[in-house]
Amino acid sequence: MGYKGRLTGLQSAFARNSLDALLITHLPNIRYLCGFTGTSGVLAILDTRSVFFTDGRYTEQARAEVRGARLVITPQPPMNAAAEWLMENRRQFGHKKPRLGIEGEHLTAAGRRQLSSLVRSSFRLHETRGLVEQARMVKDADELVRVRAAAVLGASLFDRALAVIRPGIKELEVAAEMEYAAKRGGAEEMAFPTIIAAGKRSALPHGRASKAAIPPRGFVVCDFGVILTGYCSDRTRTVRVGRPSRAAHDMYEAVREAQRAAIDTVKAGVSVSEVDWAARNVLKAKGLARHFTHSTGHGVGLEIHEPPRIAAGQTEVLRAGMVITIEPGAYIAGSGGVRIEDMVVVTERGCEILAPSDNELITI
Amino acid sequence: MGYKGRLTGLQSAFARNSLDALLITHLPNIRYLCGFTGTSGVLAILDTRSVFFTDGRYTEQARAEVRGARLVITPQPPMNAAAEWLMENRRQFGHKKPRLGIEGEHLTAAGRRQLSSLVRSSFRLHETRGLVEQARMVKDADELVRVRAAAVLGASLFDRALAVIRPGIKELEVAAEMEYAAKRGGAEEMAFPTIIAAGKRSALPHGRASKAAIPPRGFVVCDFGVILTGYCSDRTRTVRVGRPSRAAHDMYEAVREAQRAAIDTVKAGVSVSEVDWAARNVLKAKGLARHFTHSTGHGVGLEIHEPPRIAAGQTEVLRAGMVITIEPGAYIAGSGGVRIEDMVVVTERGCEILAPSDNELITI
Repeated sequence: MGYKGRLTGLQSAFARNSLDALLITHLPNIRYLCGFTGTSGVLAILDTRSVFFTDGRYTEQARAEVRGARLVITPQPPMNAAAEWLMENRRQFGHKKPRLGIEGEHLTAAGRRQLSSLVRSSFRLHETRGLVEQARMVKDADELVRVRAAAVLGASLFDRALAVIRPGIKELEVAAEMEYAAKRGGAEEMAFPTIIAAGKRSALPHGRASKAAIPPRGFVVCDFGVILTGYCSDRTRTVRVGRPSRAAHDMYEAVREAQRAAIDTVKAGVSVSEVDWAARNVLKAKGLARHFTHSTGHGVGLEIHEPPRIAAGQTEVLRAGMVITIEPGAYIAGSGGVRIEDMVVVTERGCEILAPSDNELITI
Repeated sequence: MGYKGRLTGLQSAFARNSLDALLITHLPNIRYLCGFTGTSGVLAILDTRSVFFTDGRYTEQARAEVRGARLVITPQPPMNAAAEWLMENRRQFGHKKPRLGIEGEHLTAAGRRQLSSLVRSSFRLHETRGLVEQARMVKDADELVRVRAAAVLGASLFDRALAVIRPGIKELEVAAEMEYAAKRGGAEEMAFPTIIAAGKRSALPHGRASKAAIPPRGFVVCDFGVILTGYCSDRTRTVRVGRPSRAAHDMYEAVREAQRAAIDTVKAGVSVSEVDWAARNVLKAKGLARHFTHSTGHGVGLEIHEPPRIAAGQTEVLRAGMVITIEPGAYIAGSGGVRIEDMVVVTERGCEILAPSDNELITI
């Protein structure tokens, strides 16, 4: 499905959402719908046509990238140009006050107010919720090719980590080696700042690589991802420096078993909360439930965190073609933590793990 | 000035802005005001005290980082916890309906609506505009130490670029070498995706490093920056591969002269539009005005782009302690472009260029 197909799909949802027009301002959604990868632009969608507005800095880039929508280069801020164009076209709507959708979860309160004053009383603004994100959840064939390539490149960075992790090397140096390998491998950039969290710091689920040296004993959580042709990868491996205690070994195995249980649950038609529960239930049986302080996973694609959230209380049901992470963990403050994360593609019969490995505990 | 001082400064602006309380949701502003560097949290400020709300993932990190505000770890989303706390404290305001400031330029329309429903009719929401950003424009002594260190590390990356740029090497490989040097040098991350734009691509002012190989002749624009102890650097150098034509040489010298003219104009009390004009005027005299398609500069600090904008039509007046970039350029579509950028600290008598160099054209 090309950009035109994605735009048509969105337009076909206008009636269901009582929309006459839609303004897209969230950059990943703009990229998804018309291919533009720059950082300034607004995509205006009417029921049968679309126009993308950007400024002079992006003239050449937009000409090379934008497909499925007419391109307008404007000396004004793109939002103003889009509003002006909507005002000029307002007569084409049969009724008096057409309903203009905006991305309420992305457009700022100030942006909304500004837009409101630009279109004055000619349009009614309506906040849509995840309209494009809903479409983005299920990846098409072209996207799956890209996600797979990103996952394979991303997975390869762990080899570099294993080659350099040793007591005394700084977390940031390990990250530097991995990110260098990513760039040499063709990554556009990292999907997020690489997490290397060693020893007690491994108990910080979001502990970025720091200047701290890797201690002689303890876990090292490595959470890393690349962006390749626009798509993100996300993977976590935990290694042990020094011989693990019995308790440390058991904690690692519990997380590994929890991850396996969650992956075994993934299948089209299963609810995301069931997947979360599968991981949590294993950790509960091992007395580790309260140390698993985050959700089990999330969607990945043009953004590193996308819907669906794989978490308790979420009602989303898995569909074939979704790409999600499965990443349970256990974190004991002052001691250490373990997380194991893979990306999987949901299928009708289960799932495909991207760049699978056996995840036996590696001791350095 | 520590975090407490920054918070007190902000509280002293409450009366002027008719605020009774303020919710800070923009992460760089949260970091500036209470030191938290994570990615989830809300800072609630009353006239004499402040409370920072974050979730369980950040327990240890928040305890280590947050200063000047009371810390609350909450199982709820931080915004909900903050709203609840405000509701509990609403009786402390003398009048019936206290005015609650929100960051309208950062909080989303959906976030605003959600907050509005959480505080029901007990507070009147008021969108503040750049309240914290105004304070952040003038850097204090501690910040200047950090900005200088970031600028020096950032500048050093160009040596790496010079060592590897040659016809045939991919732009992304040059970026990889520079980013590796940055990480090895202690950078937390890059301030933005490194721009290496060679040959015709040098005419793209925002052309990220690509898979394209550096051609045998042409300009190579290198725009790069690091984040070190939270603060960003930003620098651009343009080199020439192959002997430049007379026209290319003249274009380079015109941009260099424009940059020098703008820097010579910088001084406390001067308006930002004057600085922009100084650069633009030189390029105009050389017939290049229409090829200078962006503004002359911007503030730099915790964010890579901060106020003030150094651009025509802007009314901000420079103050001592501001840190801004001066980065004129000229871009000829289909041919090539040049940009030269330095960071300067505004002083009473002029400015201090951070990590200055003579910027003579380097030919490779």
